[in-house]
Amino acid sequence: MTPSTLHPLLASRFSPRAFSDAAVGIEDQRALMEAARWASSCFNEQPWSFILGDRHQHPEDFARILDLLAPANQVWAAAAPLLVVTAAWRNFSRTGAENMHAWHDLGLAVGQLTVEASARGLVLHQMAGLDRLRAARTLGLPEGVEVATAIAIGHPGDPEQLPEALRSREKAPRVRKALSEIAFAGLFGQAL
Amino acid sequence: MTPSTLHPLLASRFSPRAFSDAAVGIEDQRALMEAARWASSCFNEQPWSFILGDRHQHPEDFARILDLLAPANQVWAAAAPLLVVTAAWRNFSRTGAENMHAWHDLGLAVGQLTVEASARGLVLHQMAGLDRLRAARTLGLPEGVEVATAIAIGHPGDPEQLPEALRSREKAPRVRKALSEIAFAGLFGQAL
Repeated sequence: MTPSTLHPLLASRFSPRAFSDAAVGIEDQRALMEAARWASSCFNEQPWSFILGDRHQHPEDFARILDLLAPANQVWAAAAPLLVVTAAWRNFSRTGAENMHAWHDLGLAVGQLTVEASARGLVLHQMAGLDRLRAARTLGLPEGVEVATAIAIGHPGDPEQLPEALRSREKAPRVRKALSEIAFAGLFGQAL
Repeated sequence: MTPSTLHPLLASRFSPRAFSDAAVGIEDQRALMEAARWASSCFNEQPWSFILGDRHQHPEDFARILDLLAPANQVWAAAAPLLVVTAAWRNFSRTGAENMHAWHDLGLAVGQLTVEASARGLVLHQMAGLDRLRAARTLGLPEGVEVATAIAIGHPGDPEQLPEALRSREKAPRVRKALSEIAFAGLFGQAL
Protein backbone atom coordinates (compact mmCIF):
# COMPACT_ATOMS: atom_id res chain seq x y z
CA MET A 1 0.00 0.00 0.00
CA THR A 2 1.23 3.45 -0.84
CA PRO A 3 1.31 5.79 2.17
CA SER A 4 -1.53 8.20 2.79
CA THR A 5 0.89 11.11 2.45
CA LEU A 6 1.09 10.64 -1.31
CA HIS A 7 -0.91 12.83 -3.65
CA PRO A 8 -3.85 10.78 -5.03
CA LEU A 9 -2.53 11.10 -8.60
CA LEU A 10 0.62 9.31 -7.50
CA ALA A 11 -0.91 6.93 -4.98
CA SER A 12 -3.41 5.49 -7.44
CA ARG A 13 -0.86 4.85 -10.18
CA PHE A 14 -0.16 1.27 -11.20
CA SER A 15 0.99 -0.53 -14.35
CA PRO A 16 -1.96 -2.55 -15.67
CA ARG A 17 -2.09 -5.14 -18.42
CA ALA A 18 -5.88 -4.97 -18.83
CA PHE A 19 -7.26 -2.10 -20.91
CA SER A 20 -10.81 -1.35 -21.99
CA ASP A 21 -11.42 -0.99 -25.72
CA ALA A 22 -12.15 2.73 -25.35
CA ALA A 23 -9.98 4.93 -27.57
CA VAL A 24 -7.58 7.53 -26.23
CA GLY A 25 -8.82 10.63 -28.04
CA ILE A 26 -6.49 12.96 -29.84
CA GLU A 27 -7.06 15.66 -27.18
CA ASP A 28 -5.85 13.27 -24.50
CA GLN A 29 -2.91 12.22 -26.67
CA ARG A 30 -1.86 15.82 -27.14
CA ALA A 31 -2.27 16.59 -23.43
CA LEU A 32 0.03 13.68 -22.54
CA MET A 33 2.62 14.99 -24.95
CA GLU A 34 2.25 18.52 -23.55
CA ALA A 35 2.92 17.15 -20.06
CA ALA A 36 6.16 15.60 -21.30
CA ARG A 37 7.00 18.69 -23.31
CA TRP A 38 7.04 20.99 -20.27
CA ALA A 39 9.38 18.83 -18.18
CA SER A 40 12.74 20.29 -17.20
CA SER A 41 15.93 19.05 -18.84
CA CYS A 42 19.67 19.56 -18.74
CA PHE A 43 20.43 22.88 -20.54
CA ASN A 44 16.76 22.77 -21.64
CA GLU A 45 17.83 20.33 -24.35
CA GLN A 46 14.47 18.48 -24.29
CA PRO A 47 16.18 15.31 -25.55
CA TRP A 48 12.99 13.33 -26.16
CA SER A 49 10.87 12.05 -29.04
CA PHE A 50 7.60 10.15 -28.88
CA ILE A 51 6.06 8.05 -31.66
CA LEU A 52 2.39 7.26 -31.14
CA GLY A 53 0.35 4.41 -32.56
CA ASP A 54 -3.42 4.89 -32.21
CA ARG A 55 -5.16 1.53 -32.65
CA HIS A 56 -8.55 3.01 -33.54
CA GLN A 57 -7.53 5.87 -35.85
CA HIS A 58 -4.30 4.54 -37.33
CA PRO A 59 -4.28 0.74 -37.06
CA GLU A 60 -1.23 0.44 -39.34
CA ASP A 61 0.80 2.68 -37.01
CA PHE A 62 -0.34 0.64 -34.04
CA ALA A 63 0.54 -2.65 -35.74
CA ARG A 64 4.01 -1.38 -36.65
CA ILE A 65 4.78 -0.58 -33.02
CA LEU A 66 3.14 -3.73 -31.65
CA ASP A 67 5.39 -5.78 -33.92
CA LEU A 68 8.45 -4.26 -32.21
CA LEU A 69 7.44 -5.44 -28.74
CA ALA A 70 8.70 -8.55 -27.02
CA PRO A 71 6.20 -11.40 -27.49
CA ALA A 72 5.41 -11.50 -23.77
CA ASN A 73 4.31 -7.86 -24.00
CA GLN A 74 2.40 -8.31 -27.27
CA VAL A 75 0.05 -10.75 -25.51
CA TRP A 76 -1.61 -7.99 -23.54
CA ALA A 77 -0.42 -4.78 -25.25
CA ALA A 78 -2.31 -5.73 -28.41
CA ALA A 79 -5.51 -4.76 -26.60
CA ALA A 80 -4.29 -1.32 -25.51
CA PRO A 81 -5.75 1.55 -27.54
CA LEU A 82 -2.49 3.51 -27.70
CA LEU A 83 1.16 2.50 -27.95
CA VAL A 84 3.96 5.04 -27.62
CA VAL A 85 7.65 4.52 -28.34
CA THR A 86 9.96 6.84 -26.42
CA ALA A 87 13.41 7.85 -27.62
CA ALA A 88 16.34 9.87 -26.28
CA TRP A 89 18.62 12.18 -28.27
CA ARG A 90 22.10 11.09 -27.31
CA ASN A 91 23.99 14.31 -28.10
CA PHE A 92 23.49 18.00 -27.38
CA SER A 93 22.09 19.71 -30.46
CA ARG A 94 24.30 22.78 -30.06
CA THR A 95 27.68 21.16 -29.40
CA GLY A 96 27.33 17.56 -30.49
CA ALA A 97 28.81 16.49 -27.15
CA GLU A 98 27.29 13.47 -25.43
CA ASN A 99 24.34 14.33 -23.19
CA MET A 100 24.72 11.88 -20.33
CA HIS A 101 21.42 13.13 -18.92
CA ALA A 102 19.38 12.27 -22.02
CA TRP A 103 17.82 9.08 -20.65
CA HIS A 104 17.32 10.65 -17.22
CA ASP A 105 15.52 13.60 -18.75
CA LEU A 106 13.41 11.35 -20.97
CA GLY A 107 12.38 9.46 -17.82
CA LEU A 108 11.56 12.74 -16.13
CA ALA A 109 9.32 13.75 -19.04
CA VAL A 110 7.58 10.37 -18.90
CA GLY A 111 7.05 10.90 -15.18
CA GLN A 112 5.19 14.11 -15.96
CA LEU A 113 3.22 12.37 -18.72
CA THR A 114 2.26 9.67 -16.23
CA VAL A 115 0.69 12.19 -13.87
CA GLU A 116 -1.27 13.83 -16.67
CA ALA A 117 -2.52 10.38 -17.66
CA SER A 118 -3.69 9.69 -14.11
CA ALA A 119 -5.45 13.06 -14.00
CA ARG A 120 -7.35 12.05 -17.14
CA GLY A 121 -8.39 8.64 -15.85
CA LEU A 122 -5.88 6.90 -18.08
CA VAL A 123 -3.48 4.16 -17.04
CA LEU A 124 -0.21 3.20 -18.60
CA HIS A 125 2.32 0.41 -18.56
CA GLN A 126 5.93 0.99 -19.51
CA MET A 127 7.92 -1.69 -21.26
CA ALA A 128 11.64 -2.20 -21.62
CA GLY A 129 10.89 -5.29 -23.70
CA LEU A 130 11.08 -4.19 -27.33
CA ASP A 131 13.55 -4.49 -30.18
CA ARG A 132 15.14 -1.07 -29.71
CA LEU A 133 17.45 -1.14 -32.72
CA ARG A 134 14.78 -2.38 -35.10
CA ALA A 135 12.37 0.18 -33.65
CA ALA A 136 14.76 3.05 -34.38
CA ARG A 137 15.06 1.92 -38.01
CA THR A 138 11.40 1.07 -38.53
CA LEU A 139 10.11 4.31 -37.04
CA GLY A 140 12.57 6.44 -39.00
CA LEU A 141 14.46 7.94 -36.07
CA PRO A 142 17.47 10.08 -37.01
CA GLU A 143 20.99 8.90 -36.27
CA GLY A 144 21.90 9.44 -32.61
CA VAL A 145 18.36 8.97 -31.37
CA GLU A 146 18.05 5.92 -29.14
CA VAL A 147 14.79 4.09 -28.53
CA ALA A 148 14.30 3.67 -24.78
CA THR A 149 10.90 2.18 -24.00
CA ALA A 150 7.40 1.50 -25.24
CA ILE A 151 4.32 2.55 -23.27
CA ALA A 152 0.84 1.07 -23.49
CA ILE A 153 -1.82 3.65 -22.59
CA GLY A 154 -5.57 3.39 -22.20
CA HIS A 155 -8.52 3.23 -19.86
CA PRO A 156 -8.60 0.58 -17.13
CA GLY A 157 -9.99 -2.74 -18.31
CA ASP A 158 -11.34 -5.95 -16.85
CA PRO A 159 -8.53 -8.23 -15.60
CA GLU A 160 -10.79 -11.18 -16.44
CA GLN A 161 -10.01 -10.59 -20.12
CA LEU A 162 -6.37 -11.49 -19.49
CA PRO A 163 -4.81 -14.97 -19.71
CA GLU A 164 -4.80 -16.64 -16.29
CA ALA A 165 -1.08 -16.13 -15.65
CA LEU A 166 -1.37 -12.37 -16.18
CA ARG A 167 -4.68 -12.08 -14.35
CA SER A 168 -3.16 -12.98 -11.00
CA ARG A 169 -0.28 -10.53 -11.54
CA GLU A 170 -2.81 -7.78 -12.21
CA LYS A 171 -4.20 -8.21 -8.71
CA ALA A 172 -0.87 -8.60 -6.95
CA PRO A 173 0.04 -5.82 -4.50
CA ARG A 174 2.74 -3.40 -5.59
CA VAL A 175 6.00 -3.93 -3.73
CA ARG A 176 8.91 -1.58 -3.21
CA LYS A 177 12.12 -1.40 -1.21
CA ALA A 178 11.77 0.26 2.20
CA LEU A 179 12.21 4.01 2.28
CA SER A 180 15.29 3.45 4.45
CA GLU A 181 16.92 1.60 1.54
CA ILE A 182 16.66 4.48 -0.93
CA ALA A 183 16.74 7.77 1.02
CA PHE A 184 19.52 8.88 3.35
CA ALA A 185 20.42 11.84 5.55
CA GLY A 186 23.75 13.32 4.59
CA LEU A 187 25.65 10.13 3.77
CA PHE A 188 24.76 6.85 2.13
CA GLY A 189 23.44 4.44 4.78
CA GLN A 190 22.41 7.07 7.33
CA ALA A 191 18.72 6.98 8.26
CA LEU A 192 16.60 9.90 7.18
CA MET B 1 2.78 29.63 -21.43
CA THR B 2 1.84 26.05 -20.69
CA PRO B 3 -1.45 25.05 -22.32
CA SER B 4 -4.66 25.06 -20.33
CA THR B 5 -5.01 21.30 -20.87
CA LEU B 6 -2.24 20.60 -18.38
CA HIS B 7 -3.00 19.54 -14.83
CA PRO B 8 -2.31 22.50 -12.49
CA LEU B 9 0.42 20.54 -10.65
CA LEU B 10 2.30 20.30 -13.94
CA ALA B 11 1.36 23.67 -15.41
CA SER B 12 2.61 25.63 -12.41
CA ARG B 13 5.98 23.88 -12.21
CA PHE B 14 9.12 25.88 -12.86
CA SER B 15 12.76 25.74 -11.77
CA PRO B 16 13.40 28.70 -9.46
CA ARG B 17 16.66 30.03 -8.07
CA ALA B 18 15.01 32.06 -5.29
CA PHE B 19 13.92 30.19 -2.16
CA SER B 20 12.46 31.48 1.08
CA ASP B 21 14.33 30.60 4.27
CA ALA B 22 11.51 28.31 5.43
CA ALA B 23 12.65 24.77 6.22
CA VAL B 24 11.40 21.70 4.40
CA GLY B 25 10.08 19.64 7.30
CA ILE B 26 10.95 15.99 7.73
CA GLU B 27 7.37 15.00 6.87
CA ASP B 28 7.68 16.78 3.53
CA GLN B 29 11.11 15.25 2.95
CA ARG B 30 9.75 11.75 3.57
CA ALA B 31 6.73 12.39 1.34
CA LEU B 32 9.00 13.44 -1.53
CA MET B 33 11.00 10.26 -1.10
CA GLU B 34 7.80 8.19 -0.98
CA ALA B 35 6.72 9.73 -4.27
CA ALA B 36 9.99 8.63 -5.84
CA ARG B 37 9.82 5.26 -4.14
CA TRP B 38 6.52 4.30 -5.77
CA ALA B 39 7.62 5.07 -9.33
CA SER B 40 7.73 2.20 -11.79
CA SER B 41 11.05 0.80 -12.97
CA CYS B 42 12.47 -1.82 -15.30
CA PHE B 43 12.01 -5.23 -13.60
CA ASN B 44 11.01 -3.24 -10.51
CA GLU B 45 14.73 -2.74 -9.85
CA GLN B 46 14.18 0.70 -8.25
CA PRO B 47 17.71 1.74 -9.23
CA TRP B 48 17.75 4.99 -7.29
CA SER B 49 19.34 6.48 -4.18
CA PHE B 50 18.82 9.92 -2.69
CA ILE B 51 21.12 11.72 -0.23
CA LEU B 52 19.50 14.66 1.53
CA GLY B 53 21.12 17.68 3.14
CA ASP B 54 18.80 19.66 5.40
CA ARG B 55 20.27 23.14 5.96
CA HIS B 56 18.31 23.81 9.14
CA GLN B 57 18.56 20.45 10.90
CA HIS B 58 21.87 19.14 9.58
CA PRO B 59 23.99 22.06 8.39
CA GLU B 60 27.09 19.88 8.01
CA ASP B 61 25.22 17.56 5.60
CA PHE B 62 24.02 20.57 3.66
CA ALA B 63 27.50 22.10 3.46
CA ARG B 64 28.99 18.81 2.25
CA ILE B 65 26.55 18.67 -0.68
CA LEU B 66 26.78 22.40 -1.43
CA ASP B 67 30.54 22.01 -1.77
CA LEU B 68 30.01 19.45 -4.56
CA LEU B 69 28.02 21.86 -6.74
CA ALA B 70 29.40 23.90 -9.59
CA PRO B 71 30.21 27.44 -8.39
CA ALA B 72 27.50 28.94 -10.61
CA ASN B 73 24.94 26.78 -8.80
CA GLN B 74 26.37 27.43 -5.33
CA VAL B 75 25.60 31.14 -5.74
CA TRP B 76 21.86 30.57 -5.40
CA ALA B 77 21.60 26.97 -4.07
CA ALA B 78 23.30 28.03 -0.82
CA ALA B 79 20.01 29.66 0.16
CA ALA B 80 17.82 26.62 -0.50
CA PRO B 81 16.72 24.80 2.64
CA LEU B 82 17.20 21.31 1.18
CA LEU B 83 19.71 19.82 -1.25
CA VAL B 84 19.32 16.31 -2.60
CA VAL B 85 21.87 14.30 -4.58
CA THR B 86 20.37 11.65 -6.85
CA ALA B 87 22.18 8.50 -7.91
CA ALA B 88 21.51 5.56 -10.23
CA TRP B 89 22.48 1.93 -9.65
CA ARG B 90 24.20 0.92 -12.85
CA ASN B 91 23.69 -2.86 -12.66
CA PHE B 92 20.77 -5.15 -11.90
CA SER B 93 21.03 -6.41 -8.33
CA ARG B 94 20.01 -9.96 -9.24
CA THR B 95 22.17 -10.61 -12.30
CA GLY B 96 24.88 -7.94 -12.21
CA ALA B 97 24.09 -7.14 -15.86
CA GLU B 98 24.08 -3.51 -16.91
CA ASN B 99 20.72 -1.82 -16.42
CA MET B 100 20.53 0.55 -19.36
CA HIS B 101 17.29 1.95 -17.95
CA ALA B 102 18.81 3.01 -14.63
CA TRP B 103 19.12 6.72 -15.45
CA HIS B 104 15.74 6.72 -17.21
CA ASP B 105 14.08 5.19 -14.18
CA LEU B 106 15.83 7.58 -11.81
CA GLY B 107 14.46 10.44 -13.92
CA LEU B 108 11.01 8.89 -13.77
CA ALA B 109 11.19 8.72 -9.98
CA VAL B 110 12.30 12.35 -9.84
CA GLY B 111 9.34 13.22 -12.06
CA GLN B 112 7.02 11.72 -9.46
CA LEU B 113 8.88 13.51 -6.66
CA THR B 114 8.44 16.77 -8.55
CA VAL B 115 4.67 16.41 -8.60
CA GLU B 116 4.53 15.63 -4.88
CA ALA B 117 6.65 18.73 -4.28
CA SER B 118 4.22 20.88 -6.30
CA ALA B 119 1.29 19.42 -4.38
CA ARG B 120 2.99 20.52 -1.15
CA GLY B 121 3.72 24.05 -2.31
CA LEU B 122 7.40 23.26 -2.75
CA VAL B 123 9.52 24.18 -5.75
CA LEU B 124 12.67 22.54 -6.95
CA HIS B 125 15.53 23.14 -9.31
CA GLN B 126 17.52 20.28 -10.79
CA MET B 127 21.21 20.67 -11.50
CA ALA B 128 23.53 18.72 -13.73
CA GLY B 129 26.38 20.95 -12.56
CA LEU B 130 28.10 19.09 -9.76
CA ASP B 131 31.30 17.09 -9.35
CA ARG B 132 29.73 13.68 -9.82
CA LEU B 133 32.79 11.55 -9.12
CA ARG B 134 33.77 13.48 -6.01
CA ALA B 135 30.14 13.37 -4.88
CA ALA B 136 30.04 9.58 -5.13
CA ARG B 137 33.18 9.30 -2.98
CA THR B 138 32.27 12.01 -0.50
CA LEU B 139 28.75 10.72 0.10
CA GLY B 140 29.89 7.11 0.49
CA LEU B 141 28.03 5.63 -2.43
CA PRO B 142 28.79 1.96 -3.12
CA GLU B 143 30.72 0.92 -6.23
CA GLY B 144 28.50 0.90 -9.31
CA VAL B 145 26.28 3.71 -8.06
CA GLU B 146 26.55 6.79 -10.27
CA VAL B 147 25.69 10.28 -9.11
CA ALA B 148 23.32 11.86 -11.63
CA THR B 149 22.07 15.24 -10.39
CA ALA B 150 21.59 17.52 -7.44
CA ILE B 151 18.22 19.10 -6.63
CA ALA B 152 17.57 22.25 -4.62
CA ILE B 153 14.17 22.13 -2.91
CA GLY B 154 12.27 24.68 -0.87
CA HIS B 155 9.46 27.18 -0.74
CA PRO B 156 9.27 29.95 -3.34
CA GLY B 157 11.35 32.98 -2.46
CA ASP B 158 11.69 36.58 -3.53
CA PRO B 159 13.62 36.95 -6.81
CA GLU B 160 14.83 40.32 -5.54
CA GLN B 161 17.20 38.48 -3.21
CA LEU B 162 19.09 37.12 -6.23
CA PRO B 163 22.06 38.75 -7.97
CA GLU B 164 20.89 40.89 -10.89
CA ALA B 165 21.96 38.42 -13.60
CA LEU B 166 19.90 35.62 -12.02
CA ARG B 167 16.96 37.86 -11.18
CA SER B 168 16.13 38.50 -14.82
CA ARG B 169 16.36 34.76 -15.62
CA GLU B 170 13.93 34.05 -12.80
CA LYS B 171 11.28 36.11 -14.55
CA ALA B 172 11.99 34.86 -18.08
CA PRO B 173 9.18 32.86 -19.68
CA ARG B 174 9.72 29.13 -19.97
CA VAL B 175 10.40 28.05 -23.55
CA ARG B 176 10.08 24.67 -25.18
CA LYS B 177 10.25 23.11 -28.62
CA ALA B 178 6.91 22.96 -30.43
CA LEU B 179 4.80 19.87 -29.81
CA SER B 180 5.23 19.02 -33.49
CA GLU B 181 8.98 18.66 -32.89
CA ILE B 182 8.71 16.02 -30.18
CA ALA B 183 5.53 13.98 -30.80
CA PHE B 184 4.71 12.08 -33.98
CA ALA B 185 1.95 9.88 -35.37
CA GLY B 186 3.27 6.51 -36.44
CA LEU B 187 6.62 7.56 -37.87
CA PHE B 188 9.22 10.16 -36.96
CA GLY B 189 8.34 13.46 -38.66
CA GLN B 190 4.62 12.74 -39.17
CA ALA B 191 2.32 15.28 -37.52
CA LEU B 192 0.23 14.07 -34.62
